[in-house]
Amino acid sequence: MTSTVPPTDHQGSTTTASDGLLHFPPSSALALEPHLPPPTLNPNSSSKPGSKPFVTLTFATSLDSSLSLAPGVRTTLSGPQSKAMTHYLRSRHSAILVGVGTAVADDPGLNCKILSPSGLGKGVREQHPNQPRPIVLDPSARWKVNERSKVVQLARLKQGLGPYIFVTREGMEKVTAERRKMVESVGGKFVCVESSLDSKGEAEERKTTGFVWEDVLRTIREEGLDSVMIEGGGSVINSLLTLEQAGGQELVDSVIVTIAPTWLGAGGVLVCPPRAIGKDGQPAPPVRLRDVSWHPLGEDVVLCGKILR
Amino acid sequence: MTSTVPPTDHQGSTTTASDGLLHFPPSSALALEPHLPPPTLNPNSSSKPGSKPFVTLTFATSLDSSLSLAPGVRTTLSGPQSKAMTHYLRSRHSAILVGVGTAVADDPGLNCKILSPSGLGKGVREQHPNQPRPIVLDPSARWKVNERSKVVQLARLKQGLGPYIFVTREGMEKVTAERRKMVESVGGKFVCVESSLDSKGEAEERKTTGFVWEDVLRTIREEGLDSVMIEGGGSVINSLLTLEQAGGQELVDSVIVTIAPTWLGAGGVLVCPPRAIGKDGQPAPPVRLRDVSWHPLGEDVVLCGKILR
Repeated sequence: MTSTVPPTDHQGSTTTASDGLLHFPPSSALALEPHLPPPTLNPNSSSKPGSKPFVTLTFATSLDSSLSLAPGVRTTLSGPQSKAMTHYLRSRHSAILVGVGTAVADDPGLNCKILSPSGLGKGVREQHPNQPRPIVLDPSARWKVNERSKVVQLARLKQGLGPYIFVTREGMEKVTAERRKMVESVGGKFVCVESSLDSKGEAEERKTTGFVWEDVLRTIREEGLDSVMIEGGGSVINSLLTLEQAGGQELVDSVIVTIAPTWLGAGGVLVCPPRAIGKDGQPAPPVRLRDVSWHPLGEDVVLCGKILR
Repeated sequence: MTSTVPPTDHQGSTTTASDGLLHFPPSSALALEPHLPPPTLNPNSSSKPGSKPFVTLTFATSLDSSLSLAPGVRTTLSGPQSKAMTHYLRSRHSAILVGVGTAVADDPGLNCKILSPSGLGKGVREQHPNQPRPIVLDPSARWKVNERSKVVQLARLKQGLGPYIFVTREGMEKVTAERRKMVESVGGKFVCVESSLDSKGEAEERKTTGFVWEDVLRTIREEGLDSVMIEGGGSVINSLLTLEQAGGQELVDSVIVTIAPTWLGAGGVLVCPPRAIGKDGQPAPPVRLRDVSWHPLGEDVVLCGKILR
């Protein structure tokens, strides 16, 4: 993953060379800084072990809030600059989380393809050293992860990390020894998410993601990961937004949404959370962002904000 | 509608005084200029009588593309700056069009509440002289427009124009003489939209708005109105976007969408067009915008663009 930088390279906002590595300009990165986990965060920080990681909710939609044309259809929505931004964000988080639906449908790489700034300083193109840990929420272990899965291939090539696959206790029983060995051979593992609670409310959450979010976040922190970027898919995003609407659980620290100037039309995978009931039994007010900033990026716009509570 | 300007007024981006008049700063207006009808357009211009008016499609949505929480529920989505922008846009169009659903549900004023720049120059607050003609698409004349309707009240107060209510030939037969007289007494009228075509395709369009769009736009032009702002509601917007997706009809000249940083959640009135079939019988590519610009305005963002054809 190392090659000499062509003389005119790393000048434009994005460079896509044959190595597929992307450049995200420092000026754009600076604008995102207030919305990212503090760079000082690290697994050995003084934050107490039980506390949750810094959570960034980030995804790209069309104007009509679609993530893709249909479930399982990879849809290129945003432009090259936005793609570079996503990979820059990955360099700034310890982990990147997707639901099993996305893992099955998209076979995502879940690595960081941004150019290393220190490499650029030395005149070489090399991949950023900060690779996020891929986490797949797969309660019943239905993802048939194998040697051909992109995330495994990238880990073999040392271009990404092996995945942590979060399963329930019941799910763990379905994992074959062969599959476990394969995942562990690339530095990944199956992780059992222990359930700390079992009230009616939590049962509601399980319907969507198969887990209670607090358990997921605690487990991420217990794995020594202090920040996580939640990227999708629709049911993962919607379940988080609905919980935030219901109130009482402060799960998401930062929201970064890219919007592309297109309408995908009816039938897409929508970010459109089911409406929550508040603690008082009445319909809760809609989720709104505060400390909002909008950053045009190519043809797209990037929205940064925090959830108003 | 005239009062002395308080000394500190028309300094901020928006002023909402007791007269309800709004200020939209010239710098923001300048940014919108490339997306607006040429200021030279007027009913006596050299454009041929049969040609269509300049069409601006404009509306405000949540991040999840909702216009409102539910049909008939007025929902304040965007901030005061965006509201001032909408009223500025109204000062730059000959007409403003909504569907009957919006007229019935929202009882909209459909006037322009922007401050007159010439008044500001003289140190007085007065309403902008350019009032758009309200047009309501009401094929079967089901809108019970009456003296209490906001648009009628505003026209009586000379704060807006009387509405042109577009009906079909069949709809016209249902209009009572009393109602016609009342509408005409404020300078409005019922207008019969004659159907020029009657093929299968047009029948499809009628399902949504009750009219063929070409007939509506031709009628607007025949009424001496050379530009129209189409504001809603959901079915009007979606029908236009679906037609644009199908291709072959170049109806919309400019798109101006305001997006507010909130998710209204499932159950809202969505801008999410039904997917169109192209001329070749295959699913048409999604509607995309070109010449895109994004303008942060308060907490919202305003997207300007043209439909990519």
